[in-house]
Amino acid sequence: MTDPPPRGEFELIAEVLAPLARARPGAFGLTDDAAILKPCPGRTLVVTADAMIAGIHFAVEDPPDLVARKLMRVNLSDLAAMGASAMGYLLVVSLDETSREGWIDELGRGLASDQETFGVGLLGGDTTAGGGALGVSMTAFGEVREEALLRRAGARVDDLVYVSGTLGDAAFALGILNGEVAAPEPSAREWLVGRLHLPIPRLDLGSRLGHLATAAIDVSDGLIADLGHVCACSGLAAEVEFERVPLSSAARTVMASDPGARGRILGGGDDYELLFTVPPDNAQAMDGLAAELALPLTPIGRMVAGAGVRVRGEDGSLLDLARPGYVHF
Amino acid sequence: MTDPPPRGEFELIAEVLAPLARARPGAFGLTDDAAILKPCPGRTLVVTADAMIAGIHFAVEDPPDLVARKLMRVNLSDLAAMGASAMGYLLVVSLDETSREGWIDELGRGLASDQETFGVGLLGGDTTAGGGALGVSMTAFGEVREEALLRRAGARVDDLVYVSGTLGDAAFALGILNGEVAAPEPSAREWLVGRLHLPIPRLDLGSRLGHLATAAIDVSDGLIADLGHVCACSGLAAEVEFERVPLSSAARTVMASDPGARGRILGGGDDYELLFTVPPDNAQAMDGLAAELALPLTPIGRMVAGAGVRVRGEDGSLLDLARPGYVHF
Repeated sequence: MTDPPPRGEFELIAEVLAPLARARPGAFGLTDDAAILKPCPGRTLVVTADAMIAGIHFAVEDPPDLVARKLMRVNLSDLAAMGASAMGYLLVVSLDETSREGWIDELGRGLASDQETFGVGLLGGDTTAGGGALGVSMTAFGEVREEALLRRAGARVDDLVYVSGTLGDAAFALGILNGEVAAPEPSAREWLVGRLHLPIPRLDLGSRLGHLATAAIDVSDGLIADLGHVCACSGLAAEVEFERVPLSSAARTVMASDPGARGRILGGGDDYELLFTVPPDNAQAMDGLAAELALPLTPIGRMVAGAGVRVRGEDGSLLDLARPGYVHF
Repeated sequence: MTDPPPRGEFELIAEVLAPLARARPGAFGLTDDAAILKPCPGRTLVVTADAMIAGIHFAVEDPPDLVARKLMRVNLSDLAAMGASAMGYLLVVSLDETSREGWIDELGRGLASDQETFGVGLLGGDTTAGGGALGVSMTAFGEVREEALLRRAGARVDDLVYVSGTLGDAAFALGILNGEVAAPEPSAREWLVGRLHLPIPRLDLGSRLGHLATAAIDVSDGLIADLGHVCACSGLAAEVEFERVPLSSAARTVMASDPGARGRILGGGDDYELLFTVPPDNAQAMDGLAAELALPLTPIGRMVAGAGVRVRGEDGSLLDLARPGYVHF
């Protein structure tokens, strides 16, 4: 069997990308110069873009389907943080000279799988090949009723600070992969690495928070940094109680022997959980929502006057977040 | 004077990108996870994406402001080809390890200049640094009344094939820069190179064609290729008369001594003129529109039954477009 000739842009579009656009009439089968997009009546369009570049966000030898799915999930997480539901996406793929034949096909399979999971479709994009670096960027589109739009600004004094799911998992996974953290038994290791590679965009949660939360963000840079963004945009400070930060059982099994555990929990990014502020009167509604979504929603602190993020340890004293090496992400 | 420390992503956003977003309230000053976008009532959103990668679409040493402006114009040209007016854009910037300090600032200055020209604003995006390759990609947003949307499909038998402006200029400029074409006197050379580096998206024309044209595309891959797309999408063939293809006076001065001139005119891309089909009854309206816009709109052929593009020379015989070297782009 001889190798097939390398495919040009038109073949790649027809074979790999056009099938991903089949379910979206506004994509016109990727035959036109642009696509059209119509939010439901009364809804506003929400747009966001993220890139993943080989050598920075992933390794050339990483499975392309995982790269595709992480890129999709990271983008959808931004929509979730705005309270939006997902509609579709544009994709820009850059293949470099070393990209192996089949890389983009595997990328397409990952996208097809996650399209199904999240109910989105490809709308268009661009492919380049033969130079530059291997990389993929995505623009994701969502829609939201404007009165349910979540912003980073909007938190008020005495609001409770909530986080969904558990934090630190992705950072512990990275530590395990880097050899900095002792690996736990295989199923815990696999679960943690899955949290790093395939985060779950909290779209269901985000679309339910519009009338309950005053501000929201997704945890991509780490709890301290992302809560800091909410504080800065809202003109307030936040106080977090460290022992309330929700941890997975897998994280608990590795943190005992990891001197950098607190740093990973408070400073590690990539968990893509939602971090949001809720007036105390809505606390009971949050319990109901957590039960309904089967997703832990945990109050970890509250908003106060001032600026910046403070974290209290178990003895009530403030942790020194500036201590070198403490938050090292 | 010592060099300032390299800026992180947050500084780049605050210093270079946030000022570009100032005029668009839905961009939220780039402080949030996503932006919102609202077409005027009765209009549909149009989206498109294009990338420019160092080593493929531009050279590392090219002025970043020109790279930015070409990227903007190429994207807006796609909106023009759909009949849309321009609203805003998302930007993904990848800086590699060799990107000089100041590259992104110059990029920002180019964007600021063209934002002013075309009435668009930055809505958001992503920046990466430290690995990968130098490159920029853009998602552009426009709006159109759905009944005025232009597609590649829709051309009918006997429709006239029109093109705006002049063709071949960008290909001649490339030939001059490559040393394949003898350079004309400086002002003609400069004009041709300007056509290559700063194409003019025909937004005014596109937004006026909705009720006059049956199909449209922008000339990015070359006349033969792009008219071929219209033919394929419309299920028809096209016949073009070579001597009707509009040429600039600068192109005329260089083509006499260029044995590849016909190839550049028919096969060269990057002119970003609009190519569109018009029912014969609308020919008079096209003359009026050309006068109003002060832009040549030239009928170069017509749509016929069949498939593919045929070009007739001055003596009425068909040109052999498959002749090796004839269309070499």
